[in-house]
Amino acid sequence: MAAIFYNAHHSPIGAFASLTLGCKGATGGLGLELAQPANQPVYMGLQSKDGQYIDMLPFYGSVGQADPAARFQVEQAPGEGIKEESKGSSALKLRPFADTDISRNMAASIDEWHAGDLVVRVISPVMPVPDPAEAELESLKVAIVPAILVEFEVDNRGCALERKAVFGYVGTDPYSAMRRLDDTMPGYAGVGQGTHTAVVAEQGSAVSALGFSIDDILAIHLPENCQFGLGATGLLTVTAAADCISRFRFAVCFYRDGCATAGLASSYLYTRYFTCIEQVAQFALQHYEKLRQLALDADSRFASPHLTPDQRWMVAHAIRSYYGCSQLLTTNDDPLWVVNEGEYRMMNTFDLTVDQLFYEMMSNPWTVKNVLDQFVDRYSYEDEVTEPGASHRYPGGISFTHDMGVGNVFSRPEYSSYEKFGLRGCFSHMTHEQLVNWILCAAVYVHGTNDESWCASKLTTLAACLQSMVNRDHYLEEKRDGVMSLESTRTSGGAEITTYDSLDESLGQARANVYLAVKCWAAYIALQRIFTDHGLEDLAELAHRQAVLCATTVTASAGEDGQIPALLEGNHPSRIIPAIEGLVFPLHTGCEDAVRPSGEYADLVNALGRHFRSVLVPNVCLFDDGGWKLSSTARNSWLSKIYLCQHVARKVLGIDGPAVTANADRAHVGWLTDEKNGYWAWSDQMVAGVAMASRYYPRGVTSCLWLNEE
Amino acid sequence: MAAIFYNAHHSPIGAFASLTLGCKGATGGLGLELAQPANQPVYMGLQSKDGQYIDMLPFYGSVGQADPAARFQVEQAPGEGIKEESKGSSALKLRPFADTDISRNMAASIDEWHAGDLVVRVISPVMPVPDPAEAELESLKVAIVPAILVEFEVDNRGCALERKAVFGYVGTDPYSAMRRLDDTMPGYAGVGQGTHTAVVAEQGSAVSALGFSIDDILAIHLPENCQFGLGATGLLTVTAAADCISRFRFAVCFYRDGCATAGLASSYLYTRYFTCIEQVAQFALQHYEKLRQLALDADSRFASPHLTPDQRWMVAHAIRSYYGCSQLLTTNDDPLWVVNEGEYRMMNTFDLTVDQLFYEMMSNPWTVKNVLDQFVDRYSYEDEVTEPGASHRYPGGISFTHDMGVGNVFSRPEYSSYEKFGLRGCFSHMTHEQLVNWILCAAVYVHGTNDESWCASKLTTLAACLQSMVNRDHYLEEKRDGVMSLESTRTSGGAEITTYDSLDESLGQARANVYLAVKCWAAYIALQRIFTDHGLEDLAELAHRQAVLCATTVTASAGEDGQIPALLEGNHPSRIIPAIEGLVFPLHTGCEDAVRPSGEYADLVNALGRHFRSVLVPNVCLFDDGGWKLSSTARNSWLSKIYLCQHVARKVLGIDGPAVTANADRAHVGWLTDEKNGYWAWSDQMVAGVAMASRYYPRGVTSCLWLNEE
Repeated sequence: MAAIFYNAHHSPIGAFASLTLGCKGATGGLGLELAQPANQPVYMGLQSKDGQYIDMLPFYGSVGQADPAARFQVEQAPGEGIKEESKGSSALKLRPFADTDISRNMAASIDEWHAGDLVVRVISPVMPVPDPAEAELESLKVAIVPAILVEFEVDNRGCALERKAVFGYVGTDPYSAMRRLDDTMPGYAGVGQGTHTAVVAEQGSAVSALGFSIDDILAIHLPENCQFGLGATGLLTVTAAADCISRFRFAVCFYRDGCATAGLASSYLYTRYFTCIEQVAQFALQHYEKLRQLALDADSRFASPHLTPDQRWMVAHAIRSYYGCSQLLTTNDDPLWVVNEGEYRMMNTFDLTVDQLFYEMMSNPWTVKNVLDQFVDRYSYEDEVTEPGASHRYPGGISFTHDMGVGNVFSRPEYSSYEKFGLRGCFSHMTHEQLVNWILCAAVYVHGTNDESWCASKLTTLAACLQSMVNRDHYLEEKRDGVMSLESTRTSGGAEITTYDSLDESLGQARANVYLAVKCWAAYIALQRIFTDHGLEDLAELAHRQAVLCATTVTASAGEDGQIPALLEGNHPSRIIPAIEGLVFPLHTGCEDAVRPSGEYADLVNALGRHFRSVLVPNVCLFDDGGWKLSSTARNSWLSKIYLCQHVARKVLGIDGPAVTANADRAHVGWLTDEKNGYWAWSDQMVAGVAMASRYYPRGVTSCLWLNEE
Repeated sequence: MAAIFYNAHHSPIGAFASLTLGCKGATGGLGLELAQPANQPVYMGLQSKDGQYIDMLPFYGSVGQADPAARFQVEQAPGEGIKEESKGSSALKLRPFADTDISRNMAASIDEWHAGDLVVRVISPVMPVPDPAEAELESLKVAIVPAILVEFEVDNRGCALERKAVFGYVGTDPYSAMRRLDDTMPGYAGVGQGTHTAVVAEQGSAVSALGFSIDDILAIHLPENCQFGLGATGLLTVTAAADCISRFRFAVCFYRDGCATAGLASSYLYTRYFTCIEQVAQFALQHYEKLRQLALDADSRFASPHLTPDQRWMVAHAIRSYYGCSQLLTTNDDPLWVVNEGEYRMMNTFDLTVDQLFYEMMSNPWTVKNVLDQFVDRYSYEDEVTEPGASHRYPGGISFTHDMGVGNVFSRPEYSSYEKFGLRGCFSHMTHEQLVNWILCAAVYVHGTNDESWCASKLTTLAACLQSMVNRDHYLEEKRDGVMSLESTRTSGGAEITTYDSLDESLGQARANVYLAVKCWAAYIALQRIFTDHGLEDLAELAHRQAVLCATTVTASAGEDGQIPALLEGNHPSRIIPAIEGLVFPLHTGCEDAVRPSGEYADLVNALGRHFRSVLVPNVCLFDDGGWKLSSTARNSWLSKIYLCQHVARKVLGIDGPAVTANADRAHVGWLTDEKNGYWAWSDQMVAGVAMASRYYPRGVTSCLWLNEE
């Protein structure tokens, strides 16, 4: 882990907020509901021992306008008048720490920087969110308080001088000004922007100031002038006593009040418990010790000894990006759990939900139920189906939308923001895949929680889902092979796609796709299990029949070399790793037997094992650097899916080795920390190692499946 | 008026919102609470008669990211997949109207564009805001509904084809996505961003669509794809029938819900009557005829026949910029009237209030009282005074802050956002000037409204103000000369400044300044009048004595050439036009006699008349182009103050002629419409005709004094 200057999220849970930090320059900052880092200078530094400089972590840089004070002072020499007060004073000068003086250690909750005599710990505790319907108030507030903590530790032993340390930022909100929170929080010192973001400390030695620049603030010699109200730079200064170790605590806070979403009006759940950002800051600082301990607990929880350092780092990084996208809303007294889709900000994109599922089941399964209910209640629809290129309509059935909206705008009922009509590529419908995703999520939720009352209430929906799947296989029973053959009428003569929407047919086309086929098989056996458990023998039998058909079709498609083509029709040359992806589900739906090498589906499992061994070789599904290439015919690879398939290889197929783990992980860490990619924190789509899309993305928490490999 | 491509505000009242429009390129758009235009492409166009093009008004241009769809489609040929649906369709192409085909006629409420067969009327009715404490609900809602109207008129006579017309924009809010309002407003078609901005039409022929670009939207051939939810471009399309004139109505709406300000929590008053932007749109369209008629009424009211076209245009332009900065808030059930300071967004900057006063008195005097009360209750303070450069403190007294905060952040009680300590230039305190401003505003309010109960409740404050003024003259009665001699201790040994903060001593220094001296004289006689009316003879006598001293001092300072130096001390070479500025107040405080050439202060008035005649000559206070140069020693001139002094020259001093009016106005119109300046709508500070500061500014409504010259 040589590269340390990459951005990472430091986020409260469910606030769609992030202190993004780590890249050099003004590339991070306090972002609220953004599609990318806030691009704010963040100032963190410590006065040098000689007293003349502030040695800085490198998270700042120029910000557009050279001298924001200039527009007040036309026709005057630069700084004339304004700086008069500081004439003769020797202002502290900024100086970056040398790279070699800086080290970083990032876990899921605590990101620790060492630089000279300064330690900065950015603390964003990872913890389960209790179900608001049942939660004890205090623990709910602790989980969702929209703040994170920052701790400065100054080792001033052996130095006879007091030394100042600074923490601040330049605000970029277009609507509101920066301010000092001292004015509204007696006993505290803080700087913030409007009602939305703030950095707050208990007063102690902390002094807040605003100015046009950090240089202007450092040049202040009349203390009253810290209370200047203009300028976009806010800075807190603390003073470390001589000859000892001092610690300073800050809360980095976020707040969005009122109606947060259009389309369907909702507000952040935290607004019920905190009426303004001042209350957030106060709560976070009052609960500092507790939150810090929760962070330590989480970091040991995720630092499982069976994981390699590379694995631990990817797990931590992915969890951070996930929470940066998380949003806990409420409407009509009901909670709404939303995960925003990184740089795209689509809300609860279903083909992400199904992957993030495993992490949510470990953390807070009620959010899975919450999202599944939203999909049934508002984002399900009925269609018909057609044969490819034909117009005659056959019965289709229920399915679910790709997403629930975008950028705080809920889309209308029964429609996503993403899906268009008449296409066969990106932006086409994902009808079949989202249908399968709902079944799989529901089955994993039911198996993981034993929530029988929910399951019972959804049996009708599950039966409709089964019928809808069968109808998409074929309208003639004798032609069914367990695999999707018909297209939704929502494509208007186009073709359905999959979550791999920007890939060629190898993964982009839904019909006859082996990736989707194996997920269908997993859905059929999960349905069989649920229907059997509820004495619905006819449905169970239908599901079983389809599962067998599907398994047979996939198995029979293997060539002599053991490779299974990406498309189970035609003669497409692609070979894909995600053929094995669907094998993860039986482990989580109570169908472990189905993936045993000696079980009912041994042929399928063994065929997929042979396929996988055969494609995970150079020039097929490996990049030159050892990174995984999901499709043999594309340079576009998805890290979240790689993580999932690595888990399947080891856990289900029993295949491991350098190509599966060590070499691959080293390459993938290299991708994420490459200076071309580090700005975007955790990114999913990598084109030959370059993050080109799906950046700043939540889906990497598939890596948490690795925790199950102990 | 040859130049027509300049930005102008089109604003609802009190919403701190503006559809800014007029410059070429993506330089205008729907701005909410911004310090500058939103820089959004605005699309307004009409299909050509041959059906192949949309001829466009020039308010659009490129917007940063070349192809916002690209990040969804890595590794694909541009447009592959996405545009498949439109293969073979002949999409309409954009084509700008030729400049020569476009004409514009802008009044205060209606800005009318003619281009080919299209007329676009942007309608933002100017009307008084009723006092919320007394207003009838419906008339209050009509006045403050946060929407303006846009009317398209298509002359399709003689054309056998239907023709489409388009109206839309590209959203720039960093937090929320664009959306279609059809989803939440049955019977309407609309596009908007988040909960904050929208363009809405009654459904009729209107169709809304979203897309990555207007080209993408025009290429849609499956109507379902208008409902795509991604992309920052929103467009409404209407269809004009063949061979007739068609009219289409749109509401351009703004909304900010929840807590709108920090420091002191408040919300927009309109949120009490409209719970969301959908209700705003509905109300505006339902009251379309009434609002349109109010706009027509206002435009005839301001188009007084005694005004020249240049004067009418400047009045209209200034009124627009004023409303773009206006903000009607409410806290604890009380209304708060705020005017934001243009590009600086300082709130209720007092030295602007005193100039905007005359327009507010014509429109809604309750806002003057409201602001004066805010200054007394939260933004007054007590200081002491010192002799320049000395440290001994003498009694000072009450004064008022420069402003009440900035950018939706109210500053703490007793302090402005702007004023710093220890300075003698920009950002120093304006203690004396703001004291005088409070007195003058109060006197004008009392005289204009006969609000005796308010006046009675403020007599103590007025007495304190008088004492505070006297204390700033001199602590020894025998040394008083009616003019400021002592500095506030708030300057910490620096020096007070005036509203001309970025000018040299000629106007920037408060002490001994003739501009401030004449305003002091006006304040003293206004106080005398009030105290006399209330039988407070001692106070009246004190005020009168000070007024006489002041008048004598100023009069005695005139040189043999009749010129009065800018500073009534030392030997400063500056000569300034605003020596006469204070003469406006006696006309509005019931002291008309004081400015009669034969009255008690005839010597002062005549001396100022001689001074003015003497300096309004080339190389002193005239620029080469005939524009007014407020100070002989600076190139920096303030249009709002020029307007005011033009009025004083004509109305009080009886001086007119080309240098006062026609030539000057022509130059000033030229400044505002110059392509270097037109982006900023109405701007105040002009450095040799270039808007360098105080841009996008509200203060130009001093021009409304011209309406009194009939």
